[in-house]
Amino acid sequence: MWASDKNGPQHEPSGRRRRILRGLLYCTGDMAEFQKFMEKKPYLLQLVVWCLRGVARVILANNPASGALILGALLMTSPWVTLLGVLGLLTSTLTAIIIGQESKEVVGGLHGFNGMLVALLMGTFSSAGDWYWWLLLPACLAGATCTFLFSGLGPVLDRWDLPVSVFPFNTAILLYLCCTGPTNPYFPHHPSTPPGALQHSNATLNTLQVLQGVVLGVGQIYACGELWPSVLILAAVFLFSPLLCAHALLGSAAGTLAGLSVAVRSSCLYSGLSGFNGALGCMAVGGLFFTISWRTHLFSIACAFLSAYADIALSNLLGMMGVPACSWAATLTTTLMLLLTAQNLSAYRIPLGRVTTPENNLRTHSHWTGATTESTDV
Amino acid sequence: MWASDKNGPQHEPSGRRRRILRGLLYCTGDMAEFQKFMEKKPYLLQLVVWCLRGVARVILANNPASGALILGALLMTSPWVTLLGVLGLLTSTLTAIIIGQESKEVVGGLHGFNGMLVALLMGTFSSAGDWYWWLLLPACLAGATCTFLFSGLGPVLDRWDLPVSVFPFNTAILLYLCCTGPTNPYFPHHPSTPPGALQHSNATLNTLQVLQGVVLGVGQIYACGELWPSVLILAAVFLFSPLLCAHALLGSAAGTLAGLSVAVRSSCLYSGLSGFNGALGCMAVGGLFFTISWRTHLFSIACAFLSAYADIALSNLLGMMGVPACSWAATLTTTLMLLLTAQNLSAYRIPLGRVTTPENNLRTHSHWTGATTESTDV
Amino acid sequence: MWASDKNGPQHEPSGRRRRILRGLLYCTGDMAEFQKFMEKKPYLLQLVVWCLRGVARVILANNPASGALILGALLMTSPWVTLLGVLGLLTSTLTAIIIGQESKEVVGGLHGFNGMLVALLMGTFSSAGDWYWWLLLPACLAGATCTFLFSGLGPVLDRWDLPVSVFPFNTAILLYLCCTGPTNPYFPHHPSTPPGALQHSNATLNTLQVLQGVVLGVGQIYACGELWPSVLILAAVFLFSPLLCAHALLGSAAGTLAGLSVAVRSSCLYSGLSGFNGALGCMAVGGLFFTISWRTHLFSIACAFLSAYADIALSNLLGMMGVPACSWAATLTTTLMLLLTAQNLSAYRIPLGRVTTPENNLRTHSHWTGATTESTDV
Repeated sequence: MWASDKNGPQHEPSGRRRRILRGLLYCTGDMAEFQKFMEKKPYLLQLVVWCLRGVARVILANNPASGALILGALLMTSPWVTLLGVLGLLTSTLTAIIIGQESKEVVGGLHGFNGMLVALLMGTFSSAGDWYWWLLLPACLAGATCTFLFSGLGPVLDRWDLPVSVFPFNTAILLYLCCTGPTNPYFPHHPSTPPGALQHSNATLNTLQVLQGVVLGVGQIYACGELWPSVLILAAVFLFSPLLCAHALLGSAAGTLAGLSVAVRSSCLYSGLSGFNGALGCMAVGGLFFTISWRTHLFSIACAFLSAYADIALSNLLGMMGVPACSWAATLTTTLMLLLTAQNLSAYRIPLGRVTTPENNLRTHSHWTGATTESTDV
Repeated sequence: MWASDKNGPQHEPSGRRRRILRGLLYCTGDMAEFQKFMEKKPYLLQLVVWCLRGVARVILANNPASGALILGALLMTSPWVTLLGVLGLLTSTLTAIIIGQESKEVVGGLHGFNGMLVALLMGTFSSAGDWYWWLLLPACLAGATCTFLFSGLGPVLDRWDLPVSVFPFNTAILLYLCCTGPTNPYFPHHPSTPPGALQHSNATLNTLQVLQGVVLGVGQIYACGELWPSVLILAAVFLFSPLLCAHALLGSAAGTLAGLSVAVRSSCLYSGLSGFNGALGCMAVGGLFFTISWRTHLFSIACAFLSAYADIALSNLLGMMGVPACSWAATLTTTLMLLLTAQNLSAYRIPLGRVTTPENNLRTHSHWTGATTESTDV
Repeated sequence: MWASDKNGPQHEPSGRRRRILRGLLYCTGDMAEFQKFMEKKPYLLQLVVWCLRGVARVILANNPASGALILGALLMTSPWVTLLGVLGLLTSTLTAIIIGQESKEVVGGLHGFNGMLVALLMGTFSSAGDWYWWLLLPACLAGATCTFLFSGLGPVLDRWDLPVSVFPFNTAILLYLCCTGPTNPYFPHHPSTPPGALQHSNATLNTLQVLQGVVLGVGQIYACGELWPSVLILAAVFLFSPLLCAHALLGSAAGTLAGLSVAVRSSCLYSGLSGFNGALGCMAVGGLFFTISWRTHLFSIACAFLSAYADIALSNLLGMMGVPACSWAATLTTTLMLLLTAQNLSAYRIPLGRVTTPENNLRTHSHWTGATTESTDV
């Protein structure tokens, strides 16, 4: 119903409130109408919209308004890191245009989000302080690398109708952090502490801070560890799809529970680091790549727990070498879930080419249900 | 000849000895007749048979009687660990039924053995002592995870007609051990010592103990380090296929030789830990996935050595991070061997859908020889 | 033009100079005429030619004369290591013949170069001194293993029309080094120092030595760290294709620049270790697997930088466990580049079956351009 309001025939109760509601509804979902409207606009303006979509793609949303909101949230946290992120976003999008990636993918922002994330993380991990201008160089390079990785991984994953998602980001940031290391004279960075590291004092947990960590878990998808920007990011997801927003919080909560169950460091719980992989896993399964139903809802919670536990394991493993696990866990778990052939779950799988908003997915499910197996089987 | 006795027309020399022999023969091979007989029985009874097949599947056998024997052997070693294993077995089988995996696979026990193994290993590695009831929780979770992994890896490996084998178990146990770590307050476990670690005293090897290690190598497939249970497990394999049993011992011996050649710790040799990957690799190639002949026999010995060396390498690598290599080496090596395209070996490859007992494989080889390349090529 | 001289109709200016030039031209390119000439010769002589092609294949050349030159260069450096290399070369080629690999591949030397490389590296890393005869055993074993790995990886990579390249070598040497370790009583080896390790003195760089390191970078592909042998190896590449030779130097320079940019140890720069992955990456993209043009030329430089950075990252990561990264970086990066679907680059991609010398690739590009997408898509 979220999207049908726009198209259905309806009598017009004139007035300002109505117009505001209309404007808001126009900004929801994947803004397909806006996409059509932009097609005739100048190239630079279009590029901006593609990039904004790229910003939102990080959190699985495909909506330029969400992207703008998120960009605002990041600016609130750290202007320097945001500048780096925008640079990475631009470099990877432009690289994609130059090497001739499919224009449909570029328009959808698919070639921006990896570059943005890697540059954001480079800024966050850097221990050289803000406005260390030399960092622009690796940020550009990493952004371009992400596009190459995206383009190269595409045909491999496409065999099983899988999305490339954030594999390029995870690979690029891991390579960058291994390349430089904490003591590098040019690009030093903070070493990563594994979540299972021993704590000095065994103080009791602060329930309020743990709850706050659940919200921060959504912000940590953008490496943002402050409360209000995280809330703003949640609002941006709500704009794209309320269902996805609910699953983001649910997944973050599941991740925090998983963290509690194996006694991770309390700072991990408080900062939301133990929640963001769960959030990503829960969102991907709960509505985006699977039609929502009570079955896929339960399935998305299972996926959130699995992502969270896998993240703790990988963080401990990679933490021994001083590098973070980023979102490897959620990416791998989601990829696994998309591969499932079990009838009771794969029946809800949405072919990659037809993925839109969870609300749209639900509406159009009946239309393509019969074609699912065919398109994934070829 | 092992299986044809049952079907061939023969005159009946009445008497008790004849009937006992008949009963024994009925329990050999993959017990396909028993499978048909069970189809009309109550659901719970069928579930038990599926699970027993799952128990035997760990050691590449597909026979409920072998499963029962092995369960007995495990009970002799440690009732607590066996309880965990059965729990993992049940959880993963039930998860498979719930999420709607193919019933043919469930009936064959394919969805039980990974869950069982992971729960067995969790019990073995746990340093919290026996009857630590909290361990039931992660055992259930890991069992369910194995089914998801099995279902997800299936379509990927299926492209090359490869079995999923114990990839899910290896992934799940690695994640669990990394997740918790030796000092975890809730689920502590024994750290793993790499086989190449320096020994304190350079005492001479005890030949008898090394020979005993060869037999224990077969038991170590179930993480069982005692002599008589290992012999019982060998007997269970003999029940399924004498050929497979011979290859198990041969592979374990090859693994022990490989361990001797690079001077692993003597405790590795004595406990059978250096032999079990060789045993698994040798069994898979020698009779199960390849029709037996003198060529595949030599090939199976090569595979045993390769598995054993790969295991030492991986154990040293992962041991630096305190985690064991489990059966990664044998699984990867076997997968590689199944991919071989060299004419003199691939001609003996049995398409995955036609794998039965080595003895049956040998008998029916001529029937499908012509169809091999077609079915693996699609 | 390099190859067309041989075939084109031309008037004959009799004289010795002309004949020498002719002889030289006969030895250039992939010596397809020589291949035909050898077909009627005795088996052993043919085997020698196959092996010589295998020697040259390491550096992406396919020319027995280059192979002979390189063998000479290696003998200049260390006769013992060369002996090991030849042994590995022979074992892996013979294993391929025995297990029945395609004769076309054997003739092209495709089954020799991995075995040779792994044996060369085993000799170089060994800390047991020269002429430690026990080393022949693992060298033979590793050579045979490489052939199995080559045969097994083939069908997987073939799905995306990718070459197996040096994946088998990298896997085998990693397993061997992990298997034995620096303190092994039978097969000890020098531990590997990560390039990002802290330096004791922060002395200024010697420009001349860095420049020499660029040339050594080409030699390091054969683990050869001396100047004149490296120059000879460069000459051998020049014999196969001057274009490839130029890209080798260019890539090595790019790798050295990459090393400078993240401040690797100066010994890495001087010895050419920071250059050889760049050289391999640059050669593969610049002319061999892509038709040369200014676009692919820029692309090859990008690939060189990416290979070099990936190598530093992997070396740091694996160096923590005391093992070297060998040529994993270049192999993975090249594989990624061959997967690219971006139109402006994939249009230049040469289907694997049609790869010859860069000069031939350029001439015949127009003939198959239309067929590219078809052959990689199936």
